[in-house]
Amino acid sequence: MRGGAIILSWALALLLAAGPARAEDGYELWLRYRPLPPTYAAEVAAIAPALAVDAPASPTIAAATAELDRAFAAWTGRPLAPAGTGETALLLCRLDRPCAATLPAHRLADGTGAYRIDRLARGSVAVSARDDIGLLYGSFALLRHIQQRAPLDTLPQADAPRVAIRMLDHWDNVDGSVERGYAGRSIFQWWRLPGYVDPRLTDYARANASIGINAVAVNNVNAPATFLTPRFILKAKALADTLRPYGIRVFLSARFSAPRDLGGLATADPLDPAVQRWWRAKADEIYAAIPDFGGFLVKANSEGQPGPQDYGRSHADGANMLARALGTRGIVIWRAFVYDPDPATERTMQAYNTFQPLDGQFDANVVVQVKNGPLDFQPREPISPLFGAMPRTQLGLEFQITKEYLGFSTHLAYLAPLFEEALDTGGLGKDGRATLADIVTGDKPAPTSLIAGVANIGSDRNWSGSHFDQANWYAFGRLAWNPRLSSETIAREWTAQSFAPDPELVGAIVPMMLASRQTVVDTMTPLGLAHLMGSDHHYGPAPWVDDLGRPDWNPVYYHRADADGIGFDRTPSGSNALAQYPVGLARRYADESDPALPFLLWFHRKRWDDRLVTGRSVWDELVVRYDRGVAGVDAMAATWNGLSGRIDARRHGEVAALLAVQQQEARWWRDASIAYFQSLAKRPLPAGHAAPAQPLDWYRAQRFPEAPGI
Amino acid sequence: MRGGAIILSWALALLLAAGPARAEDGYELWLRYRPLPPTYAAEVAAIAPALAVDAPASPTIAAATAELDRAFAAWTGRPLAPAGTGETALLLCRLDRPCAATLPAHRLADGTGAYRIDRLARGSVAVSARDDIGLLYGSFALLRHIQQRAPLDTLPQADAPRVAIRMLDHWDNVDGSVERGYAGRSIFQWWRLPGYVDPRLTDYARANASIGINAVAVNNVNAPATFLTPRFILKAKALADTLRPYGIRVFLSARFSAPRDLGGLATADPLDPAVQRWWRAKADEIYAAIPDFGGFLVKANSEGQPGPQDYGRSHADGANMLARALGTRGIVIWRAFVYDPDPATERTMQAYNTFQPLDGQFDANVVVQVKNGPLDFQPREPISPLFGAMPRTQLGLEFQITKEYLGFSTHLAYLAPLFEEALDTGGLGKDGRATLADIVTGDKPAPTSLIAGVANIGSDRNWSGSHFDQANWYAFGRLAWNPRLSSETIAREWTAQSFAPDPELVGAIVPMMLASRQTVVDTMTPLGLAHLMGSDHHYGPAPWVDDLGRPDWNPVYYHRADADGIGFDRTPSGSNALAQYPVGLARRYADESDPALPFLLWFHRKRWDDRLVTGRSVWDELVVRYDRGVAGVDAMAATWNGLSGRIDARRHGEVAALLAVQQQEARWWRDASIAYFQSLAKRPLPAGHAAPAQPLDWYRAQRFPEAPGI
Repeated sequence: MRGGAIILSWALALLLAAGPARAEDGYELWLRYRPLPPTYAAEVAAIAPALAVDAPASPTIAAATAELDRAFAAWTGRPLAPAGTGETALLLCRLDRPCAATLPAHRLADGTGAYRIDRLARGSVAVSARDDIGLLYGSFALLRHIQQRAPLDTLPQADAPRVAIRMLDHWDNVDGSVERGYAGRSIFQWWRLPGYVDPRLTDYARANASIGINAVAVNNVNAPATFLTPRFILKAKALADTLRPYGIRVFLSARFSAPRDLGGLATADPLDPAVQRWWRAKADEIYAAIPDFGGFLVKANSEGQPGPQDYGRSHADGANMLARALGTRGIVIWRAFVYDPDPATERTMQAYNTFQPLDGQFDANVVVQVKNGPLDFQPREPISPLFGAMPRTQLGLEFQITKEYLGFSTHLAYLAPLFEEALDTGGLGKDGRATLADIVTGDKPAPTSLIAGVANIGSDRNWSGSHFDQANWYAFGRLAWNPRLSSETIAREWTAQSFAPDPELVGAIVPMMLASRQTVVDTMTPLGLAHLMGSDHHYGPAPWVDDLGRPDWNPVYYHRADADGIGFDRTPSGSNALAQYPVGLARRYADESDPALPFLLWFHRKRWDDRLVTGRSVWDELVVRYDRGVAGVDAMAATWNGLSGRIDARRHGEVAALLAVQQQEARWWRDASIAYFQSLAKRPLPAGHAAPAQPLDWYRAQRFPEAPGI
Repeated sequence: MRGGAIILSWALALLLAAGPARAEDGYELWLRYRPLPPTYAAEVAAIAPALAVDAPASPTIAAATAELDRAFAAWTGRPLAPAGTGETALLLCRLDRPCAATLPAHRLADGTGAYRIDRLARGSVAVSARDDIGLLYGSFALLRHIQQRAPLDTLPQADAPRVAIRMLDHWDNVDGSVERGYAGRSIFQWWRLPGYVDPRLTDYARANASIGINAVAVNNVNAPATFLTPRFILKAKALADTLRPYGIRVFLSARFSAPRDLGGLATADPLDPAVQRWWRAKADEIYAAIPDFGGFLVKANSEGQPGPQDYGRSHADGANMLARALGTRGIVIWRAFVYDPDPATERTMQAYNTFQPLDGQFDANVVVQVKNGPLDFQPREPISPLFGAMPRTQLGLEFQITKEYLGFSTHLAYLAPLFEEALDTGGLGKDGRATLADIVTGDKPAPTSLIAGVANIGSDRNWSGSHFDQANWYAFGRLAWNPRLSSETIAREWTAQSFAPDPELVGAIVPMMLASRQTVVDTMTPLGLAHLMGSDHHYGPAPWVDDLGRPDWNPVYYHRADADGIGFDRTPSGSNALAQYPVGLARRYADESDPALPFLLWFHRKRWDDRLVTGRSVWDELVVRYDRGVAGVDAMAATWNGLSGRIDARRHGEVAALLAVQQQEARWWRDASIAYFQSLAKRPLPAGHAAPAQPLDWYRAQRFPEAPGI
């Protein structure tokens, strides 16, 4: 029976490859609480011999203690027993309670959610805060510390959010699809609400609270008014009830024409008293169901959505009308992503032209939410010129966590460097010394300071479609909490928690993550190019597209390549979009002396043979960048494959498969782009750079009806 | 710190309610392999002290041994060691190997997949089969036996499939949506294939193999030709490679117009030589990628799909042309679900009129696949009159597992009684003594005997959208394997494996399951009514709809209710659809003496005041049935709620929430239907039956844009 033995070893290999019956499938995100090494486990057990809570009962406190119990039970093998009087214990202490007297004297930062973690005299630990949510955040911070196996003597620590509203925007539709979603369907399961609330929503809330997210817009900004019907308000209430213990408030995207769509009114004119009454009654109806309802998120007069301009009113008229319907109960988040139906003005200048003149006209409970860049979530953009240009308006910052333009959930692209690059952009403010982060946070955090991210979360088991896309959710939350955290710190935290706090592993993975976004820039939109992707689905290269309904929907509008050269002249000799920026920042954006050349072709039109600071011609540099991108993906794959055996087989295999796809698709982007640009430039490839694998027509003929997220 | 202790006990309660970190979320289906009680565990350990395999190495053998190892490791706490020579061991024995001589003499049933399980002299167990897949099926049968904690001395057992092709039809679309899918998105993730194959597809294959399913059509019968492009053939190949070790062959739904859509031909006329060549080349291309490709599933000239009638050819012309392109390599499954664009003929008679005259004209490798009933997967239908009427044609039977018309995945409706009722229908065949099961299996199982089910499987964690819908997948597979199994036996098997083999639990759940389908009939379509649901989404009551494009799309076409009465006269005084059945069966269908009155209004038009065998008038009986339905759902909820604490909290809570929704929705169906029919009948409700909660207009105004599966 030798054959049998051989089969059996096959079978065992199969079984081991599959891992234990419950493999690491990514569901637990960064909240894995895996066993600790013995010495450290003993230290951890010592700081939490039991749990004492001095705070009035509340669902938020219950959530905090449940999380601590879950983690410490996993680490120490026994549940956290309640502490007897005077016993040494891990302490959750609300500062209006007697326990405060037992803690070291200190002052917490202002605002909701601040916390402090102290070592106590007898070696245990206290998490203290002014409010319940601070105790929950502090509990998660302690668990984050331990999951990274950080030395316990580096406590005490204190922290507080720098931004008041840290928000996920879900572009989830009534039918369960997700616009620009690459991780399955809507986790909210609208169809089944309110009767059935998916238990995973509690895990969603835990994950959000663990990184400080405290607000979610649960439906797509391209929303039908359906979401404001009584049936859907009950659904939203069920969500709000589930998320509330975790300090998360629910917002709804509101369709501006709802008074007509639902209310039977003839108009949605914001100055019409009947319209104002309708919205006031609708707000009252929502608040009766959801007392802590956050407010409305509105996309108006943008890409076909209705808005106040339909009635000759301004965005301020529209936003203020809704803000007054909410009153002091909530806020209106009004998106600045607009471009005129008449595209005579250069596309990247339109939002500024529309909104900047309205500075000072918005009510106090209106936030104008501005995308990080002036175009649309490209792999690299300069910041929107609105930041710093509306000092009398509360501006919110909108990032896209879902990778609409960066390879969906297929490609590995860690976005924190993109977020960081935007947040660290300086030259703003009265004295030109403020960064975008300063503009968003304000001198001291305003109660309506806001950073929002378009969520990358769906019904996929691993939440984000791929394991590494979880890092973008994590990084967004951490940066919204503190915009001055570094992308490297965040990558280290995430890797240690999501894989293991093994210095070699972290040392291999973190540099790969940090380089990944530039790699995507190189493979798709090098040298400041933008908007070169396929129509509608936004996947894959299509720089040749020139037949869409508006000029500024076409890639050729953006790259402007022809026989002579390439690039968009946004200097004074061209559209002069540069003039929308403060002088210092404009000078930096126009600079051609940095060999990184991040914005070269965004702001300049160049001849193919122009010599660059790198010593190469524009044409040669373009090819070099594309090949650098391909090499970057190959390097990621090599790094990852080298970690085989050091990461659980399931996650390692899934990431490896996606990186192999990314290797192919980087070549596809490179080859298709070079084939197209070469058809215009008619120049030979620089020595050592291979010709595209297929003729241009082959790339042009590709169709992807199965692309998700449209 | 007493408050703290209270909070802590809250937190613990929360934690316990959430169950262990990895709760029972339904992912494991009926393959849970939970710990056994000590005595039985010792017996189980004794039959498998080690594992011996006498069969040549193959991926199927590896799958069998991996499954045995997974289960026995869970039960005994140690992996199954390979057996040394002569050692007592659990034996997998292929009957062409030396091990056969050591087994008790016996003869297996003919055909692929037959197996036998014997107790050996030294107390161990042998699974034997002629082929690898038989060994896999036998291994699963042994595990099923043990999971039910059945006495080991009831072995030996032998079994063999009675139907050659046991098939799931996935109505999965290119974009990942699923037509009539209520369990999330397509598990196949077309977008990511072939580069990324979701690991859960291996678990999907295991589950199918465990119940004998050996064929899957992976794309919607309403398929674009996209699925036949080279890119998609590579995706299908990746699926076939994943499913092959589990004995599962892949089929593709093929669009009849593909030679025009993809091939650039001017026609798709099946008699055109260029069309024939195109399909032959396409088949060759597919077989080069997938050597065991099953063949094509075709919906032609039905609901707007192209087909041979577009060119004046018959369904036989179309099917045979495709069958010849496949040759001996595969089969064509040609659906008989057609109804004429001209609806002059009564709808339920049209498929018979179209197909019956073609009997004898189909090639040997064509199966004509007929839905169980003549209409469309209603909660109750008589069988299709085609069964028994095409003796020279291989007819396949198509069930719908996904509950398009039975409350989606929200309502609890165990479908095995529906399947069983159809399969047990007699009065067929030459001597009028055959049942539908006999017709489908044939005298001895034909190599193209086929039972297909429209799958209820999606990306939801629990696969089927609800825990009890898993039972319908399970029951379908078991009945396709052996159409003579009873729905009760299957319910017992499933419950014991999916929850626990606890007699009290099984004794409570199984009767609830068995009654559940009649309860849905009562709440939605009592007394033989049909097709009363809302347009498009097919959820909720809308018997009033009368404005759809074709008469036979409207509920009013089917119930024909007016001031005088209700029901569809299909006797000789009406459409005489009865005449399409053999005389004996027709007599039974027309019978009004059975107080169950299953088909009363399907075949008869009655006056409201006609007295029925039950002693009640038609009007009163209708109301009584609706209320019986409501009471049936209440009884299910009461039964289930009584099991609290005996079933893991997560699954208990999820099912309880859905049953609460079903209680509401049963009342909605009852109230809306009674309100509508009363508006016509203008008769008072019988004493003791409550008036509808809302006026009829309220029910008519309900809209559900979020309904899934359209």
